[in-house]
Amino acid sequence: MYDVDAVRRDFPILSRQVNGKPLVYLDNGASAQKPKAVIDAITEAYSNEYANVHRGLHFLSNAATDRYEAVRGVVAKFLNVRDPSSIVHTTGSTQGINMISYGWAAPRLEAGDEIVLSVLEHHANIVPWHFLRERSGVVLRWVECDADGHLDPQAVLDAIGPRTKLIAVTHMSNVTGSVVDVAAICAGAREQGVRVLVDGSQAAVHMPVDVEAIGCDFYAITGHKLYGPSGSGAIYIRPERLAEMQPFMGGGDMIDTVTRDTVTYAKPPMRFEAGTPGIVPQIGFAVALNYMSSLGMENIAAHERRLRDVARAKLDALGWVRVQGNTPDKGAIFSFTLDGAAHAHDISTVLDQRGIAVRAGTHCALPLLSHLGVGATCRASFGLYNTEAEIDALVSALELCHELFA
Amino acid sequence: MYDVDAVRRDFPILSRQVNGKPLVYLDNGASAQKPKAVIDAITEAYSNEYANVHRGLHFLSNAATDRYEAVRGVVAKFLNVRDPSSIVHTTGSTQGINMISYGWAAPRLEAGDEIVLSVLEHHANIVPWHFLRERSGVVLRWVECDADGHLDPQAVLDAIGPRTKLIAVTHMSNVTGSVVDVAAICAGAREQGVRVLVDGSQAAVHMPVDVEAIGCDFYAITGHKLYGPSGSGAIYIRPERLAEMQPFMGGGDMIDTVTRDTVTYAKPPMRFEAGTPGIVPQIGFAVALNYMSSLGMENIAAHERRLRDVARAKLDALGWVRVQGNTPDKGAIFSFTLDGAAHAHDISTVLDQRGIAVRAGTHCALPLLSHLGVGATCRASFGLYNTEAEIDALVSALELCHELFA
Repeated sequence: MYDVDAVRRDFPILSRQVNGKPLVYLDNGASAQKPKAVIDAITEAYSNEYANVHRGLHFLSNAATDRYEAVRGVVAKFLNVRDPSSIVHTTGSTQGINMISYGWAAPRLEAGDEIVLSVLEHHANIVPWHFLRERSGVVLRWVECDADGHLDPQAVLDAIGPRTKLIAVTHMSNVTGSVVDVAAICAGAREQGVRVLVDGSQAAVHMPVDVEAIGCDFYAITGHKLYGPSGSGAIYIRPERLAEMQPFMGGGDMIDTVTRDTVTYAKPPMRFEAGTPGIVPQIGFAVALNYMSSLGMENIAAHERRLRDVARAKLDALGWVRVQGNTPDKGAIFSFTLDGAAHAHDISTVLDQRGIAVRAGTHCALPLLSHLGVGATCRASFGLYNTEAEIDALVSALELCHELFA
Repeated sequence: MYDVDAVRRDFPILSRQVNGKPLVYLDNGASAQKPKAVIDAITEAYSNEYANVHRGLHFLSNAATDRYEAVRGVVAKFLNVRDPSSIVHTTGSTQGINMISYGWAAPRLEAGDEIVLSVLEHHANIVPWHFLRERSGVVLRWVECDADGHLDPQAVLDAIGPRTKLIAVTHMSNVTGSVVDVAAICAGAREQGVRVLVDGSQAAVHMPVDVEAIGCDFYAITGHKLYGPSGSGAIYIRPERLAEMQPFMGGGDMIDTVTRDTVTYAKPPMRFEAGTPGIVPQIGFAVALNYMSSLGMENIAAHERRLRDVARAKLDALGWVRVQGNTPDKGAIFSFTLDGAAHAHDISTVLDQRGIAVRAGTHCALPLLSHLGVGATCRASFGLYNTEAEIDALVSALELCHELFA
């Protein structure tokens, strides 16, 4: 049985108050809070076993290197990736996706080549491809979701043309919570020799992810949404793609030899990890993934399904809350507006007065909001520590907004 | 009076033992240890005021944003930069220098254009320019230091030709401790319209830095060497250069608008800060800089000059220690070999047995080691918490090595 009260005690910040009320943290889509195990691991690393990695032979450097290099295996296990050397350390999904844009796509896509994108994408999985459009004349082909937020995998495959080189698609929308059948997309794309990058920034937080079963070429995750430290993350890169990539950033640790006239590079994955990395954030990231695994990703997903179903029912019952995207299997992410004059920012401010943290804005997903025909929305996004009582707090605060702004 | 014993009490790790001996940490050139103020700031941020920045209107997001945005001003003050908006957040010097290579140099340097580099450079200030050589046909022009490690600024200026677009030069060598007169280089370069990037990764740790007085176009620093967290850093970019740069990484927070067919970018510095940044590492970075400022950079520099002079005299007196680079005003960084058969890695291992952490290897500076005619060396690099007693411990352990391997 999933004991959410016990889980909540693992997160120090959840016992604080905001504006005189208990914190109700529903901004997990933007970033998640950190369990004590992660905070303690950071403190321990800096207080007792800190040094640079790969660079010394002394005790502390060896200790830090062992801890740091073990992170690859933890990420591989978390994503069900066979070979840890196909995991590259990043500072988050943005760096991971830019690494693919610069390191894999830029050297091989030419003017007129096409990238297929879904309209569900976050800017992190749009702007790096706009760079290629601006700089190389690459063509972006967009695939729409339906009014419910559902993306038909066949529609994505139908967008493939003779010049298509890459599909870049999210596994779960950060706005609607829509889950995309990325395995179906990968299977169809593979038959046509098209590569697939999956943005797992949201999905990996909320459901078990099996990269081998998905069959993608790239899968990006970001530590700070996974209950891990700021500036942590990783990307899975299929070994065949790793072998094709040119280095992204240059510096220490990613070279084999450097002379005045030549440079040769270290083998992957080190080739893509220039300079002193985020050693301690990455150590904390592994602790966060282990924490999630200890709860069980299936258990977390089941808990969040319960929250989703309760939230959906209660928000629907109000009658004046317009939720964007309502697929049956969506993640527990609700972007909404209220009928009447209430602006998202005003709603957010009223909620904040009651200690409830939601996000208001356009959620780094302007093409999607434009497609859905909405401007700024409020977003309540749930995580592994949220409760049904917090849904009631949200509903009660929304009722107040409705009275205030109706 | 600089009270090094009090300073040492600020660093939890310095009270630990390694291999049964008190830790003598002389690997500061690779990375520095962290004061309790930094560790506590990280714990506090994650335990009590964590949220994503720029993305919410709720209490925690506003608190985190205020703390995070204040970092720019702290860095600007630390480097004596007038306008905080010319400071761009990075994850360290490697990312900073790559940002300049991709964002400023790549779009404007053509085949045959030249970059002047000193042979003192760290790979972080070499490999990003090798990328331009490999990918665009840019020519790298190298300037040598003398046998003492001194780099003549006039020799750098003499290397400027009609096709020179950029000089990339360190402010302090991470191998020899040599200090480069970057102000003289910048003054001469400016007259000829050549831009100057200064790698301040080491210098900013050991001496007061006045970027306005130096007059450079770019000045990169890295938090983890500045007693700050893993994965933190910043780069100063002169406003005229910022205006010329194209975005480096694409994603959230760095855009103004995104549609399916177009993208427009946020104003600098945000234009160069894609995605969720290393919020908490950057907050800790500011605490580290404030810690250094509270001790006083002049006081730190004076303390390290004393250590340098004592270490130089005692190592010289041994007669069989060959120190690479021995300029009078060098930083307290000593790369050395021992006469006889002792290999750097063996020396490092013996020292480690006595609790002394030094680095053995090629220090990410292969062109310099090749120029000096040495392979791997040991490097003892001092920081603000080191003591004369630690120099004695180093000398005593080296005497043991000399006996063992002579």
